Amino acid sequence: MKDTEKGVCAPIGFKAAGVHCGIRKNKSKLDLALIVSDRDAAAAGVYTRNKVKGAPIAVTKEHIADGKARAIVCNSGNANTCNADGEEKAREMCRLVELNTGIPQEDVIVASTGVIGQILPIEPIAEGMPALAGALSEDGSADAAAAIMTTDTVKKEFACEFELGGKTCRMGAIAKGSGMIHPNMATLLCFVTTDAAVSSQVLARALKEVVDDTLNMVSIDGDSSTNDMALVLANGAAGNKTVDSADGEDYAAFRNALLYIMTKLSKAIAKDGEGATRLIECAVSGAADVASAKAIAKSVVCSSLLKAAMFASDANWGRILCAIGYADAVCDIEKVGVVLRSRAGSVEVCKDGNGVEFSEEEAKKVLLEDEVTIDVTCGDGTAQAVAWGCDLTYDYVKINADYRT
Amino acid sequence: MKDTEKGVCAPIGFKAAGVHCGIRKNKSKLDLALIVSDRDAAAAGVYTRNKVKGAPIAVTKEHIADGKARAIVCNSGNANTCNADGEEKAREMCRLVELNTGIPQEDVIVASTGVIGQILPIEPIAEGMPALAGALSEDGSADAAAAIMTTDTVKKEFACEFELGGKTCRMGAIAKGSGMIHPNMATLLCFVTTDAAVSSQVLARALKEVVDDTLNMVSIDGDSSTNDMALVLANGAAGNKTVDSADGEDYAAFRNALLYIMTKLSKAIAKDGEGATRLIECAVSGAADVASAKAIAKSVVCSSLLKAAMFASDANWGRILCAIGYADAVCDIEKVGVVLRSRAGSVEVCKDGNGVEFSEEEAKKVLLEDEVTIDVTCGDGTAQAVAWGCDLTYDYVKINADYRT
Repeated sequence: MKDTEKGVCAPIGFKAAGVHCGIRKNKSKLDLALIVSDRDAAAAGVYTRNKVKGAPIAVTKEHIADGKARAIVCNSGNANTCNADGEEKAREMCRLVELNTGIPQEDVIVASTGVIGQILPIEPIAEGMPALAGALSEDGSADAAAAIMTTDTVKKEFACEFELGGKTCRMGAIAKGSGMIHPNMATLLCFVTTDAAVSSQVLARALKEVVDDTLNMVSIDGDSSTNDMALVLANGAAGNKTVDSADGEDYAAFRNALLYIMTKLSKAIAKDGEGATRLIECAVSGAADVASAKAIAKSVVCSSLLKAAMFASDANWGRILCAIGYADAVCDIEKVGVVLRSRAGSVEVCKDGNGVEFSEEEAKKVLLEDEVTIDVTCGDGTAQAVAWGCDLTYDYVKINADYRT
Repeated sequence: MKDTEKGVCAPIGFKAAGVHCGIRKNKSKLDLALIVSDRDAAAAGVYTRNKVKGAPIAVTKEHIADGKARAIVCNSGNANTCNADGEEKAREMCRLVELNTGIPQEDVIVASTGVIGQILPIEPIAEGMPALAGALSEDGSADAAAAIMTTDTVKKEFACEFELGGKTCRMGAIAKGSGMIHPNMATLLCFVTTDAAVSSQVLARALKEVVDDTLNMVSIDGDSSTNDMALVLANGAAGNKTVDSADGEDYAAFRNALLYIMTKLSKAIAKDGEGATRLIECAVSGAADVASAKAIAKSVVCSSLLKAAMFASDANWGRILCAIGYADAVCDIEKVGVVLRSRAGSVEVCKDGNGVEFSEEEAKKVLLEDEVTIDVTCGDGTAQAVAWGCDLTYDYVKINADYRT
């Protein structure tokens, strides 16, 4: 695996752009993104499990029902959700893409993110679309990544090269995260492009598998958004023999690349959680089964109390035990061990379910780093899982108390 | 039902006290409480479902296994949890009560609240116990209520009179809440006394039923503590015919009194959630079944995003719909209506799952009150439920980032 640049435009045949069209008041904030493939691409998506679903999700599902797509259009600033005219507006966004790029509207994936329950103004999108289409370029990934951001403070954009059936393939991705993010959902917005040739069925299978270990293991605040989606477009421009089975080396190579990119995205999303000052990773090992390992890891990164303690770099490990204890998991608490770890070192704080003596000063040093790992070892089996979250800070409250105003 | 005074000492035959013994550094903060009955009382308890359980819970369960008890001893400042010598210390607390009051240690209920995973120093408790026993009085409820507080800012203490089988009975209660509080658990510490005569089996049944509709419908932060317990002592001093069946008028009268007191406690606990500036009540009606009604009500009061919006008195109702949508409930979103309500009036914000036009100014006025109700009407049936929570504020973060230091 080799890290590369240009995000979603790293794979052959993809262009992207981002512009300010006026959905957001702040003129310096891009608010409309477009990603296109110069040829048909296999497409697969996973979506929020929230019963309240953004209108764009219904339209997107319809448009990729045939397993292919060529474009992704996405606005920020308005979620187009809980609006009576939501689907109509989402369809209109796709029609505007066709009008300006020639890509048939039924091959357009549409997404929206922002405030729920406010009518989406279509005028700025109609007016901005010609400029957006005109700006499409192989250097446009960063603008597209910027245009889908809401309260994100950094762009989430990654790309890599990998070998598949003797050919070099490329994969790129952009995502937005920050708030209303919780595990066990197809979380947030995440768009992945690749020039590998993969059948849509196999693409869907790989996406589902990888999302369960990556995006679904991220929590910022326990809230699952109405508009979350993760989408992959695979246009086959790399010329590899199409991966059309979920067995064998080729599938493993593709899945591995997807896992690589989406793990990077997941950590970046967690680290840039609303108001966050640090990434909290919880790595569980020795669990009775994978479901228990995941439940424990998620429970730890979701605990408001632990998150507040992490903000203060306070080794209040009792809160970790508490979160393990209320996880819906098989776990013998008497066998649990906890180690706090970061670039600055590691400190054992709990063994066999009870506290061990440790240097508070040493622990503080570990927890002051901007990426902290909590290693939880269970004595129940061999299953493992990793979850990612962030600390809970004054700024999370500030951002969410101020969001609409 | 008639509100009265004196908290847990309102019922005949109960005395209480609270002292500062030195577990807490702040000498003005009481940290050791005692409640005693002058005769045997039927006893029933419900406890945390966290797999990590405070040592006092194990000892308390053992002591009330015979359905009776006479005293409750409780310290704040240390949870006596995740300590190898936890049970030994909890037993020693009971023995110290026997030594100073003559009440057999196996009739003593023991509880602790505070930091997890620090060894409980028994010396201050041993030294403070004579003064505590000496201070027992019919006016001691307020001190006992103060001594069990942690980050609580107000005492939770209530009492009432009710009629039962032609006799006037009394019931009193104290509780502590504030943080690490979440529905679906025997939440926090809650001690109820009554002079009604009730068999321990019926007492346990009534407590379980009432807790499910009261304490288990409170959430401050989604964290379920390791030490939560709710206990009732019924000493029969009122002279009513013992309620020994969960059918009939007498049971209904008793259960009703318990519901009355514990609803008051639950609202008081939610309103005084860590850092809270207001009580958020979510009242669901028209739900498909009670489980769905409860799940929806809890989901709304648990949403970090909604809680932050409430802090800003911002009518961001999309977050309410979002929380309803991810609740584990049967619910047709297209039929959901939402009204925001308080002393200042009421504003409809959502009908049939979509937004309705409303005055932001009017909504602001409603949400600026210190007790706000969110009425959610479903179109799925006739079931109802109410849950209580609070807003998410800078102070929640501050309190929990600073807690150990």
